[in-house]
Amino acid sequence: MKGFASDNYAGVHPAIMERLARVNVGHVPSYGEDPYTDAAVETLREHFGSDTHVRFVFNGTAANILCLDALATDYESVICADSAHINTDECGAPEKIARLKMNPIATPTGKLCAEAIAPVIDHFQGFEHGRQPRVVSISNVTELGTIYTPDELKELAEYVHSRGLLLHCDGARLANAAAALGVSLAALSSEAGVDALSLGGTKNGMMCGEAALWFGETAAMVRDTSFLLRKSSGMLGSKMRYISAQFSAMFEGDLWLECARHANKMAQRLIDGLPAGVELAYPSQANEIFAYLPQEIIAPLQEEFHFYTWDEPSGCVRWVVSWDTTEEEVDSLLKALHEVCS
Amino acid sequence: MKGFASDNYAGVHPAIMERLARVNVGHVPSYGEDPYTDAAVETLREHFGSDTHVRFVFNGTAANILCLDALATDYESVICADSAHINTDECGAPEKIARLKMNPIATPTGKLCAEAIAPVIDHFQGFEHGRQPRVVSISNVTELGTIYTPDELKELAEYVHSRGLLLHCDGARLANAAAALGVSLAALSSEAGVDALSLGGTKNGMMCGEAALWFGETAAMVRDTSFLLRKSSGMLGSKMRYISAQFSAMFEGDLWLECARHANKMAQRLIDGLPAGVELAYPSQANEIFAYLPQEIIAPLQEEFHFYTWDEPSGCVRWVVSWDTTEEEVDSLLKALHEVCS
Amino acid sequence: MKGFASDNYAGVHPAIMERLARVNVGHVPSYGEDPYTDAAVETLREHFGSDTHVRFVFNGTAANILCLDALATDYESVICADSAHINTDECGAPEKIARLKMNPIATPTGKLCAEAIAPVIDHFQGFEHGRQPRVVSISNVTELGTIYTPDELKELAEYVHSRGLLLHCDGARLANAAAALGVSLAALSSEAGVDALSLGGTKNGMMCGEAALWFGETAAMVRDTSFLLRKSSGMLGSKMRYISAQFSAMFEGDLWLECARHANKMAQRLIDGLPAGVELAYPSQANEIFAYLPQEIIAPLQEEFHFYTWDEPSGCVRWVVSWDTTEEEVDSLLKALHEVCS
Amino acid sequence: MKGFASDNYAGVHPAIMERLARVNVGHVPSYGEDPYTDAAVETLREHFGSDTHVRFVFNGTAANILCLDALATDYESVICADSAHINTDECGAPEKIARLKMNPIATPTGKLCAEAIAPVIDHFQGFEHGRQPRVVSISNVTELGTIYTPDELKELAEYVHSRGLLLHCDGARLANAAAALGVSLAALSSEAGVDALSLGGTKNGMMCGEAALWFGETAAMVRDTSFLLRKSSGMLGSKMRYISAQFSAMFEGDLWLECARHANKMAQRLIDGLPAGVELAYPSQANEIFAYLPQEIIAPLQEEFHFYTWDEPSGCVRWVVSWDTTEEEVDSLLKALHEVCS
Repeated sequence: MKGFASDNYAGVHPAIMERLARVNVGHVPSYGEDPYTDAAVETLREHFGSDTHVRFVFNGTAANILCLDALATDYESVICADSAHINTDECGAPEKIARLKMNPIATPTGKLCAEAIAPVIDHFQGFEHGRQPRVVSISNVTELGTIYTPDELKELAEYVHSRGLLLHCDGARLANAAAALGVSLAALSSEAGVDALSLGGTKNGMMCGEAALWFGETAAMVRDTSFLLRKSSGMLGSKMRYISAQFSAMFEGDLWLECARHANKMAQRLIDGLPAGVELAYPSQANEIFAYLPQEIIAPLQEEFHFYTWDEPSGCVRWVVSWDTTEEEVDSLLKALHEVCS
Repeated sequence: MKGFASDNYAGVHPAIMERLARVNVGHVPSYGEDPYTDAAVETLREHFGSDTHVRFVFNGTAANILCLDALATDYESVICADSAHINTDECGAPEKIARLKMNPIATPTGKLCAEAIAPVIDHFQGFEHGRQPRVVSISNVTELGTIYTPDELKELAEYVHSRGLLLHCDGARLANAAAALGVSLAALSSEAGVDALSLGGTKNGMMCGEAALWFGETAAMVRDTSFLLRKSSGMLGSKMRYISAQFSAMFEGDLWLECARHANKMAQRLIDGLPAGVELAYPSQANEIFAYLPQEIIAPLQEEFHFYTWDEPSGCVRWVVSWDTTEEEVDSLLKALHEVCS
Repeated sequence: MKGFASDNYAGVHPAIMERLARVNVGHVPSYGEDPYTDAAVETLREHFGSDTHVRFVFNGTAANILCLDALATDYESVICADSAHINTDECGAPEKIARLKMNPIATPTGKLCAEAIAPVIDHFQGFEHGRQPRVVSISNVTELGTIYTPDELKELAEYVHSRGLLLHCDGARLANAAAALGVSLAALSSEAGVDALSLGGTKNGMMCGEAALWFGETAAMVRDTSFLLRKSSGMLGSKMRYISAQFSAMFEGDLWLECARHANKMAQRLIDGLPAGVELAYPSQANEIFAYLPQEIIAPLQEEFHFYTWDEPSGCVRWVVSWDTTEEEVDSLLKALHEVCS
Repeated sequence: MKGFASDNYAGVHPAIMERLARVNVGHVPSYGEDPYTDAAVETLREHFGSDTHVRFVFNGTAANILCLDALATDYESVICADSAHINTDECGAPEKIARLKMNPIATPTGKLCAEAIAPVIDHFQGFEHGRQPRVVSISNVTELGTIYTPDELKELAEYVHSRGLLLHCDGARLANAAAALGVSLAALSSEAGVDALSLGGTKNGMMCGEAALWFGETAAMVRDTSFLLRKSSGMLGSKMRYISAQFSAMFEGDLWLECARHANKMAQRLIDGLPAGVELAYPSQANEIFAYLPQEIIAPLQEEFHFYTWDEPSGCVRWVVSWDTTEEEVDSLLKALHEVCS
């Protein structure tokens, strides 16, 4: 049974599988010293700019940690939304592996702005007894399904840089944000002043593979040491070509956009079809939908469809649609919703 | 060009590719809550015993760290050969992630024995100023291509346990050891008193995937917390079925043995055909060969064939053969060797 | 110039100095194996109960970290007030040394209660992707100068234990809390269900020295390993008698109470004499006072008296009085306040 | 009973006690922002050079960790003698707190030289899978009681720098080395090319207090961040004047030299008086003596005198004399030795 639990319940896009088979020929150097990895890096540089520095890892937690570990040390801190994946969904791996400290900020929409982060910087900067704020980390798409526009990002980046900090973006679903806004990946990252990006692949149809990217001066700063950070954090894959090849298949052409667009479209179909009275908890702008359901219908519905309760007390549930969700599947959920809500 | 640099230069066995395609159907729960993972765990339990506890990770460094992190804390130490992978080839990831301290012991063959480890335990046990020895970690096949037999393991395990310590085995090439000795995987691990095993897959024909295994009482001890250790160390894969399925394909039948046997056979062919005067540095018992070459022939030969110089001053080189090495490739290297050595 | 900046600007009580001189005779074993340390531990057991486990360290950050490191591991978290010293004033040392993760909770008075912490436990307990809540850490006196009563502590401890967690108290100023409430130190810790206590000495008239204490079952749990945790965290002093002797001098008789009572009394004198219109930010119950001053008078006043601005925008300042603050000094500050506020 | 167990069994020199009493007046800023600390830093700069950067901490483990943490990160390693205090006597605190990895080198005299460290650097430098050698750490006096001369240090420093590494010295007993050689403290550190120094005080007559020093370009490199490293490692003392004042008392005049000279002289008296047949294990050049005793006399002798067995199997014992050891005490040990050895 397919469902709405998460986009990582989905399988692997056929084009990715096909590419994995295609590169499965002969011997190539391991640990990323192979031509497939060179090509994938080149492809990402075409998206993000020629001065982009790229390191491939297996999963999103690793990409986040690698990005941040390269930017902040163990007397510095990372300012993030309290709902940030790095704060609540990585079992404290950033603290364990990179000894980071999070400075979580309460935010109703999952989005940060200058006004919210200023007091934290004011309080700690130069204060011996507090970690020094070094990075502001956002997610785009956020954990609450909301999106930062290029203009919002530019404004935030400008402020962050004006205070001497760097801006990191957890882009596990960056493709969905770009698809929703109709802009390029660069418009939401390198061109907007983001310094480091965790670029997701797995949730958008890959088997496994995420990338840590650094841009511009930040790239220059980490270029010579990022390979050691990756290895010393246990994140280095040996048969790297099988990760790189997935990135090539995804980003050489428009596969990333096609998959993300489809997911977003299915999300919109779900939103549009919701029964009257089912309210969204946040403005759902990509492929994640948060809505309030009457408490008594949640459990029965979950017997038919996979999805998570996001907040028990308020009856807020989360539906995630993915690259392979079909109109029939959406309609089937809608049908059930209409039945129980009528 | 195929070569002799490492078994992780090799590709993925067709049966593994086929299995990946086969499981690429529909949605399944992520993070290992899927039936494919259950099946793979069951398969490993058939090999290692029903009380085996299994956690899948992406790579060998992660498997080693997860095994050890579950056994030793940050006031304890790990006794290992100075040539151990965890000591010299993981960029200190065990220290960084699990805050372990290594107690490396010089050993000419890469193998440890009771006599060698006793003084370390004697010195540190109960001594407030020193890390408490908690785990003895061996590799089988060792980093020098040598092998522990079941009897050697039993004797070592008995001693290790008699001192209140646990025994871990880095089994990145355990299949090659088992194939060389003609014994089961369990005979070299769970049945020999090994408490925790890093079971390799990637080097023997998989795309990516290693397993951390704990046996018997040790399994009981870590069962309830290993999932948190894995996640907090950034090692949890989301679309887990694609790792699990590889393990199923490898270990349901005899694929693991077939691949390892072939590699070992090619290694033997290489050894048997070496020119007179080319001496082995260590008794090569599996798929890694260490031999001394005249200094002047190494570089020219490396232009034709991928392989590493293991020790510059002595002219010791390492050849690794893999599941896909052909007789022709071995013979081609031999031919070149005979030409330059004549 | 004496001032109101912090109780650690103060000197050392003469009785402490005298005791240091008294124990400065001959050789004794180092690292706490000496009779002075045995005696100091015994003295603390008389206060806190015979099953109390004690380890001396140099400073408060070390005491907090040692207490918590013994209770929580690196896939677990510590729930605390967002204003907690461990969260904002230790430069992330708990994260760095013990790889802890804080789960800070916004609280207007610096105090935690069951209602505030329940949702955090509900959300994370058993959730693979989140750190497992393991300890609730409070401060008494809190960082905002407020106090938990024995009844409040009992209620909180009961709830914490009912959820399977442990309760830690940062008691850098526990003596001031006990003096303010007229209760014993045990009534605010071991008898109230607190499992681990950082017991302060330095702020109350010692030169340097804090103690990590664990009670009851928790003491039994950590007794055999706490010495290794202390040493592996770099916190072990060699000439331990000079820390222990300070504890003996402080806690054998009533010196702790005398010092704390005096400081509290001076604080009350300051509060009672404040000009009309100067409002307290929090109910000041011990030796720390937080009050709102008109912005324009703060800087000039700070030229005459040492004290910190706690919150720039609101004009909230902090005055701390200590064991050696005199009535004249309080009156001198009051006089200046009355002058500028009139 | 005084003894020969360790120089940290000794008490505090009267001049230190007197100085502590003298500074115990009024309030001063905490955390090292006080005039006493400024003065102590200035005094050390007079010894080591005006571009010396100084941070005071409580104990020797902290000084070592702070020195090294400022120089090496968690993908780098520290080359040291296998007998180094940081390797065997700090319970892995450098690994735990600063996530360092040690590269211990077997050395019969506790001393390192270019020939011994070259192969380690050759092997790891630029190798992705290995920690990058960053610091060579020596002890002077070494853990085996031997000494590096200024010329030996210069030669070693030159080599270390030529390979792009830095040189750290654990100078817990640097005063004894300088006294033995009749040279200045700078001649064994800043003037010899040492980049960072842990300067001991406690073993030479202080109560508690060690200093982390960095010289020249290294000082410039760490100056702006060392205060954060110290705080984030839990090593910052609040009433800092009481550490600083000890350093002033020790190093303003010749107290450091007087104490060290006396200890060395007593060591020489002990060596000179040893019964025929008692062989030294290492050339004892300062205040530590290692000698082989017949197994059967060790335990009885230890009932009369405190001292440690260094190596059980060989009957090697260690005697340490301190600033307060008297001729009578030495003679008393000698008398007993002559009795049992006759």
